[in-house]
Amino acid sequence: MNPKKIKDVLSRLTNGQCTISEALEQLRTLPYDDLDFAKLDHHRELRKGIPEAIYSPGKTDEQIAAIASRALDRGDEAVFTRMRQEQHQMLERMFGSKVRWYPKARIATVGMTKRPRKGKVLVVTAGTSDIPVAEEAAVTCELLGCRVERLYDVGVAGIHRLTSNIKQFDSADAIIVLAGMEGALPSVVAGMTSKPVIAVPTSVGYGASFDGIAALLGMLSSCSSGIGVVNIDNGFGAGALATIIVKNKYGKR
Amino acid sequence: MNPKKIKDVLSRLTNGQCTISEALEQLRTLPYDDLDFAKLDHHRELRKGIPEAIYSPGKTDEQIAAIASRALDRGDEAVFTRMRQEQHQMLERMFGSKVRWYPKARIATVGMTKRPRKGKVLVVTAGTSDIPVAEEAAVTCELLGCRVERLYDVGVAGIHRLTSNIKQFDSADAIIVLAGMEGALPSVVAGMTSKPVIAVPTSVGYGASFDGIAALLGMLSSCSSGIGVVNIDNGFGAGALATIIVKNKYGKR
Amino acid sequence: MNPKKIKDVLSRLTNGQCTISEALEQLRTLPYDDLDFAKLDHHRELRKGIPEAIYSPGKTDEQIAAIASRALDRGDEAVFTRMRQEQHQMLERMFGSKVRWYPKARIATVGMTKRPRKGKVLVVTAGTSDIPVAEEAAVTCELLGCRVERLYDVGVAGIHRLTSNIKQFDSADAIIVLAGMEGALPSVVAGMTSKPVIAVPTSVGYGASFDGIAALLGMLSSCSSGIGVVNIDNGFGAGALATIIVKNKYGKR
Amino acid sequence: MNPKKIKDVLSRLTNGQCTISEALEQLRTLPYDDLDFAKLDHHRELRKGIPEAIYSPGKTDEQIAAIASRALDRGDEAVFTRMRQEQHQMLERMFGSKVRWYPKARIATVGMTKRPRKGKVLVVTAGTSDIPVAEEAAVTCELLGCRVERLYDVGVAGIHRLTSNIKQFDSADAIIVLAGMEGALPSVVAGMTSKPVIAVPTSVGYGASFDGIAALLGMLSSCSSGIGVVNIDNGFGAGALATIIVKNKYGKR
Amino acid sequence: MNPKKIKDVLSRLTNGQCTISEALEQLRTLPYDDLDFAKLDHHRELRKGIPEAIYSPGKTDEQIAAIASRALDRGDEAVFTRMRQEQHQMLERMFGSKVRWYPKARIATVGMTKRPRKGKVLVVTAGTSDIPVAEEAAVTCELLGCRVERLYDVGVAGIHRLTSNIKQFDSADAIIVLAGMEGALPSVVAGMTSKPVIAVPTSVGYGASFDGIAALLGMLSSCSSGIGVVNIDNGFGAGALATIIVKNKYGKR
Amino acid sequence: MNPKKIKDVLSRLTNGQCTISEALEQLRTLPYDDLDFAKLDHHRELRKGIPEAIYSPGKTDEQIAAIASRALDRGDEAVFTRMRQEQHQMLERMFGSKVRWYPKARIATVGMTKRPRKGKVLVVTAGTSDIPVAEEAAVTCELLGCRVERLYDVGVAGIHRLTSNIKQFDSADAIIVLAGMEGALPSVVAGMTSKPVIAVPTSVGYGASFDGIAALLGMLSSCSSGIGVVNIDNGFGAGALATIIVKNKYGKR
Amino acid sequence: MNPKKIKDVLSRLTNGQCTISEALEQLRTLPYDDLDFAKLDHHRELRKGIPEAIYSPGKTDEQIAAIASRALDRGDEAVFTRMRQEQHQMLERMFGSKVRWYPKARIATVGMTKRPRKGKVLVVTAGTSDIPVAEEAAVTCELLGCRVERLYDVGVAGIHRLTSNIKQFDSADAIIVLAGMEGALPSVVAGMTSKPVIAVPTSVGYGASFDGIAALLGMLSSCSSGIGVVNIDNGFGAGALATIIVKNKYGKR
Amino acid sequence: MNPKKIKDVLSRLTNGQCTISEALEQLRTLPYDDLDFAKLDHHRELRKGIPEAIYSPGKTDEQIAAIASRALDRGDEAVFTRMRQEQHQMLERMFGSKVRWYPKARIATVGMTKRPRKGKVLVVTAGTSDIPVAEEAAVTCELLGCRVERLYDVGVAGIHRLTSNIKQFDSADAIIVLAGMEGALPSVVAGMTSKPVIAVPTSVGYGASFDGIAALLGMLSSCSSGIGVVNIDNGFGAGALATIIVKNKYGKR
Repeated sequence: MNPKKIKDVLSRLTNGQCTISEALEQLRTLPYDDLDFAKLDHHRELRKGIPEAIYSPGKTDEQIAAIASRALDRGDEAVFTRMRQEQHQMLERMFGSKVRWYPKARIATVGMTKRPRKGKVLVVTAGTSDIPVAEEAAVTCELLGCRVERLYDVGVAGIHRLTSNIKQFDSADAIIVLAGMEGALPSVVAGMTSKPVIAVPTSVGYGASFDGIAALLGMLSSCSSGIGVVNIDNGFGAGALATIIVKNKYGKR
Repeated sequence: MNPKKIKDVLSRLTNGQCTISEALEQLRTLPYDDLDFAKLDHHRELRKGIPEAIYSPGKTDEQIAAIASRALDRGDEAVFTRMRQEQHQMLERMFGSKVRWYPKARIATVGMTKRPRKGKVLVVTAGTSDIPVAEEAAVTCELLGCRVERLYDVGVAGIHRLTSNIKQFDSADAIIVLAGMEGALPSVVAGMTSKPVIAVPTSVGYGASFDGIAALLGMLSSCSSGIGVVNIDNGFGAGALATIIVKNKYGKR
Repeated sequence: MNPKKIKDVLSRLTNGQCTISEALEQLRTLPYDDLDFAKLDHHRELRKGIPEAIYSPGKTDEQIAAIASRALDRGDEAVFTRMRQEQHQMLERMFGSKVRWYPKARIATVGMTKRPRKGKVLVVTAGTSDIPVAEEAAVTCELLGCRVERLYDVGVAGIHRLTSNIKQFDSADAIIVLAGMEGALPSVVAGMTSKPVIAVPTSVGYGASFDGIAALLGMLSSCSSGIGVVNIDNGFGAGALATIIVKNKYGKR
Repeated sequence: MNPKKIKDVLSRLTNGQCTISEALEQLRTLPYDDLDFAKLDHHRELRKGIPEAIYSPGKTDEQIAAIASRALDRGDEAVFTRMRQEQHQMLERMFGSKVRWYPKARIATVGMTKRPRKGKVLVVTAGTSDIPVAEEAAVTCELLGCRVERLYDVGVAGIHRLTSNIKQFDSADAIIVLAGMEGALPSVVAGMTSKPVIAVPTSVGYGASFDGIAALLGMLSSCSSGIGVVNIDNGFGAGALATIIVKNKYGKR
Repeated sequence: MNPKKIKDVLSRLTNGQCTISEALEQLRTLPYDDLDFAKLDHHRELRKGIPEAIYSPGKTDEQIAAIASRALDRGDEAVFTRMRQEQHQMLERMFGSKVRWYPKARIATVGMTKRPRKGKVLVVTAGTSDIPVAEEAAVTCELLGCRVERLYDVGVAGIHRLTSNIKQFDSADAIIVLAGMEGALPSVVAGMTSKPVIAVPTSVGYGASFDGIAALLGMLSSCSSGIGVVNIDNGFGAGALATIIVKNKYGKR
Repeated sequence: MNPKKIKDVLSRLTNGQCTISEALEQLRTLPYDDLDFAKLDHHRELRKGIPEAIYSPGKTDEQIAAIASRALDRGDEAVFTRMRQEQHQMLERMFGSKVRWYPKARIATVGMTKRPRKGKVLVVTAGTSDIPVAEEAAVTCELLGCRVERLYDVGVAGIHRLTSNIKQFDSADAIIVLAGMEGALPSVVAGMTSKPVIAVPTSVGYGASFDGIAALLGMLSSCSSGIGVVNIDNGFGAGALATIIVKNKYGKR
Repeated sequence: MNPKKIKDVLSRLTNGQCTISEALEQLRTLPYDDLDFAKLDHHRELRKGIPEAIYSPGKTDEQIAAIASRALDRGDEAVFTRMRQEQHQMLERMFGSKVRWYPKARIATVGMTKRPRKGKVLVVTAGTSDIPVAEEAAVTCELLGCRVERLYDVGVAGIHRLTSNIKQFDSADAIIVLAGMEGALPSVVAGMTSKPVIAVPTSVGYGASFDGIAALLGMLSSCSSGIGVVNIDNGFGAGALATIIVKNKYGKR
Repeated sequence: MNPKKIKDVLSRLTNGQCTISEALEQLRTLPYDDLDFAKLDHHRELRKGIPEAIYSPGKTDEQIAAIASRALDRGDEAVFTRMRQEQHQMLERMFGSKVRWYPKARIATVGMTKRPRKGKVLVVTAGTSDIPVAEEAAVTCELLGCRVERLYDVGVAGIHRLTSNIKQFDSADAIIVLAGMEGALPSVVAGMTSKPVIAVPTSVGYGASFDGIAALLGMLSSCSSGIGVVNIDNGFGAGALATIIVKNKYGKR
């Protein structure tokens, strides 16, 4: 029930056009959605914080364009992940400067308002092949209003690369750690810091890596405390969770 | 290298008993552990925040007792998870009041110092069978210094139980959501709040639940943003992560 | 918001104790649960149709007793599945004649009201080892108000046992088919009838049966149309679904 | 044995051309198929209700054409699922107006007779990516003679979209719910209604979704009663099962 | 329809008590089972060749006794596999000399008639731990009427044990090869002979053997031709298949 | 040791050029291969019976041509399975009439001698999509010297198609049964006949069929006796095993 | 052919009792095993280096005793792994001082001769729960003739424990690294040294550790070079491989 | 801390510019990386022994070129595995003679210095399809400084091919054994020799081979001792491990 409808009921009641019990009946049988304006307001604000992410693979150009168009029409924002170069070009032809493109992160946005950046998220990768997912996470954090530091290619096969950066860990508000293959890096990082660690298994590797399963199981089974795991290659999810942690620390979005 | 050893080198240098380059050589070849006093201090403080958790199943009474004894000897704390009643009684006979016992959470502690409680963690379960793991998470938070609210048995089969508690979600600093079977609850909760959600799949269920795998996959694949997943039945891990998030928000432990 | 609360708001409005926009504000900020009386009524009626099933394994005697006690206190019903003989005896000692026990089905009920039986569900098994789960399904149907016919041990290794019973299939409103090992029976049955078939994989078998997975995958992959699959060994779920289909056919529960 | 053959035996018997035991022997040794005319009649009628679905992927144009041709020759119907645009165009060139094409559902039919529509099936999706499979289900229902209502994109991440449509659930005879990723939607829907729910896991998602396995396991493990699950992406199967349930409710097809 | 019933119809027809079309109608509507006497005769003979095997684990003493009793009552045979010593003793107390017991094979029979032994089956194991399943296979062959030679503990880790027995392979009519762990033996044996090889993966091993899965996959993936695989630990199935091959070679059972 | 080498030792012995113990020492240390002439003769004969099958996918044109060339050079035969049209054309350009091509079976042979056909193998498929693998099996049998009967598209969804062909089963020496999806057909066939059944799971199906795994597990878990299973889509393996069974029945190849 | 038989042939040849070609024929047709004395000698020596390991779980006391007795009778050695205390006591009662018992390693030996120890194997564990498997590996090395150093409980959650021991790594000839849970330790160790690393996944952990699978996959997917993996919990296998590497370095056993 | 920085501290101390305890404080708080010059020296030497392998699939031409360029700039070496012909041509155009190309092994190197070859590695394959991975292993060994012997296509289906090469096994310092399908070859080889065996499962095979999983599980479950397993198709890893074993035998690299 939108406010206008409730107002009508209340007006008719105050005008004597219906009795209290008639009004009660009308309100009682309101479907849930009739109260949704509250929820929707709340949601809209939420969406301003973290807009819906659209996973682009498998979507046609028409679908991508329609989603972008709808978001712009309602003054909303949309974040497209895993977007191919050609899809982005199509969007740009259609919506011009309302589209922004982050090629390393394979992210495009439409209608995105710039947010002031608070806090700091450290994004760490085990190898160079993890960088595209890492950039998806990093750009997500930046889009949603966090500062980001990147520390790439510090995998456990050369542990000295990691130990030499220990100070960086403690200056972050949240640490996103990406690793494929055996996925050992989050365990080592979480053992070296007292900051929340978000672990992202990547599909880097072959054979018994099973497209990220080895890394996923390793991260879930970690002997270190303080690690939350997201889906394989889910850079956006990691960025969103990091942002939520940072924003809850530094107050209202 | 402990400080004393470094001091000796420096003394010999200032006393002219060695040259700068000899001192340099001695310092250069220090094994990594020689700098561990710094790391250890840091670690000790960390351990005061989050003591090591000992997973009790499969350990003999002797092993449990030895670990407890060692922790007490060095003035340290230890948290034993999944402890059986008999193991706890054995500990109590040996170490008396230094042992505390949380039967619902199946947790025993030795040498634990009381921490002031800051912030608030909301612990939510889908069913009553998830409660033992939920209590493990909740007691972990309390032991480590967070306030905890419990909201149990609000699974998605009766979604109204959940929607009626939406206010509670927004007052928490972090939300731990436990669910077995299809593990859908974290998705729904994360869709209703802007707080960080820590999802704990539980081994509740049978058949195609595969001892928590169905819930685990569901949580990792969630369509909602802002969820970090821990291992199946890992109440301690969830509690530790929630605490780390809370403590990083409310400052130094 | 329960009706009384809404009434209060409306009264205060009609009494001039608040303005329309104040009333609107109060109604607008109602938490979802405030409308739950409707949902709850609806739910109570639903529960009378299909009471919650409590999966007994892994629950302590205390927990079983508490759930039974609570259900009886609020004039409600409870169905306990996979109950052991001793658990039932404990219940009987506590609640006497309010407890009923169906040993073949391993089901106990408390506070269950007898329902008139409508329609017909045919319960078919491939082997004799499937019978316990079949009885769970059959007794569930009977408890919830359906007539049941049983056709046991007609597996595909002797297909003539099945073809000779083709008439029985067409006289049922829904057919529950249980099979372990290769789980082929639902495909064959669904190919012989135009009635809805509910397939229940059972954990009967060894080795590559993988505790019901072979049967589950086979049923999901069936080359026949008109089959809905439930979880491995989920006799209650199959019975509940069959009952829902039957009741929707024969009108209001 | 077709009726004519049996008649011949009986005629020869009444004409004294054979003895009773000779006739008995002839009948006794009838291969099973000799009685198949009954079965075949029954089958033909059944097929008129639910024609065989041909899964098009992996079939050559020649095979598709041959199957269509054979069906038309015997006055029968055929439903081709997952058909590509080009395959459909090929069919249309060959069989003209006997071919109908439902592009959103990727379904083509040949020789299909229009059926009057009875009852109502509600088709619900969690996301927009589930729509192709949902359309396969919806069009199947319509082709086989059911009215269909569509409720798309009401996934659990925004639970208010669902609760606001609760009335629609109760007016349907059967509800098909499609979801990928964590597959939580059927649990929530089944918890809100007393109608039979047919759950369709879709291969929407990535990583730990494992092409629909996460959703499949979640649906099988659901904490709600009254759910029958079909194979991943099996829109036709869901539509056929829904139709069977509806037709068994509203009488002879 | 048993012969008597058909005879009745035919008699009434010759007696003028019914018309041809009435008789036709009666015959036409015969359920499938009415022709089952043929099938049943055939089946009985088949069963005399290979009696049904009852998998004993998970069956109560009552069930075992009932199955044995029923088989004896109808003059039939029953083979119980994986029987425990105590179950056998119970059977012997009840049915005395009608029970035979093969402890190494964990097989008990009731009502078994002795068959003359034809042909030769060679049973080969990789290790000594495979012997119980091998004995189940060997005794099955002997009970069903084949001669058996045993060649145990000739695994591929000491390939000379195998090469030295090559002559034995070529004198057999069928070779059953059992192996756990990596399950390599059937490949090697099939590469050395032109006889049909029946491969039985056993659950011997630990860790990555996964209770026989490693051996099963290895046997299915074999680089040698002429291998048919049965279920993990399925000694009876291997024995039955070997017997069928031998009997089809040496003529009617 | 080839004969010449042994002869040399023996000659030197008879010539007094070495003592018995010296000769013994030389013979004792012969590597295994020195006796391989015997093994090789035996092998050559074996290969004439069942030539090596070359799995073509993933092999370059050069590799295919080299293998064919080598086989022809040594007067041997080769069977190429899963060959693409273009690969065959390449072979034909190179080796002309020495190449034969069986397009439905995707088999090409080089240097193949025609064998007289003995015995009969029945090849049965559940659906039309199984036919390519079935033809691979059937053509293999024919190439290796067996007569073949084909019975296609008799899946369990229309069980009457199967029961009407029961006589065909008993006239075969071996039955190859191919099925995808739930893979139930071998169980039903084996329940209707006393002939050895070779079950071939095919990768036909989608979703929970998992590219043939559902069918494979179903066949391994079959409730019927007398079934040997080969790898998914392994038509050649099934044909080779059937041929071996037939040839061992009808005597020397 | 044992030496005596060959000698006989040679004698008859020198005595003129047979011709060279007759002798050749006799030798040519020797079954493979007739040369086995050579192989056996070789094998015996091999076995003295690495005696066969008997996996004790699942073996009866009688079987254990028989294997021990047979080994002692032929002057051989046997190593029993995973032996329970009671099994060892039984062995000691029977064979007295010929039995040695290593309780931490759960290893018993019979007839074992002491070997001089060469080279050095370093055995490293991630946690204390890995110690039983580590001791199995360490004792195996010692029994087979290697010196062993132990470095326990240096898991990656506290990486400083590892970096401080870097010198120890380079002084070993082979390093055995054991880890459960995420199994990250071998990657880190192999990144810090140029010695061969043998990785042993242990079944330590719960939930997504899947009894050692997470660790196994992690070790196989390692980003570090120079790692060979053995089966889960296979301490003996790791010890045997390490010994083989060491012995091949330091010359003849 | 690089040496210069430490020197500065020491200089300031000897110059009286700071006290011992001030110097101590500065040294104490050095981050780990400040000691990395030692580690880096050690690492550089290590890298000269075994340069980092870059897995080429999924990398763009730009990335490949950048990695090669960086390695050359710092006078380092790089090994690219699984490189496509076109990628190699691109490298050659850019870096000319600094690039070497091993087409059978799909390896390209840049800046590689020739090493003298020591010891001997035997590389054995089960089939011809394993050769590309075998060449990757063999070329790796040669590049890193080992002599290599190749023994290809000696799979267990024709075991005599293997037994006739037993002498070759004992003359190697390490044996790399590659096999797909059932992966049985390493077990047989390890049973015939006392040399360390490195087992490489290959993705050769189809169906239940599961892209190398069957071979992987078989190798891990091997009944032979002395086998270390690497990842599926990981020829480089096997070559690196073999080289490490050989180099540790023959002394300093």
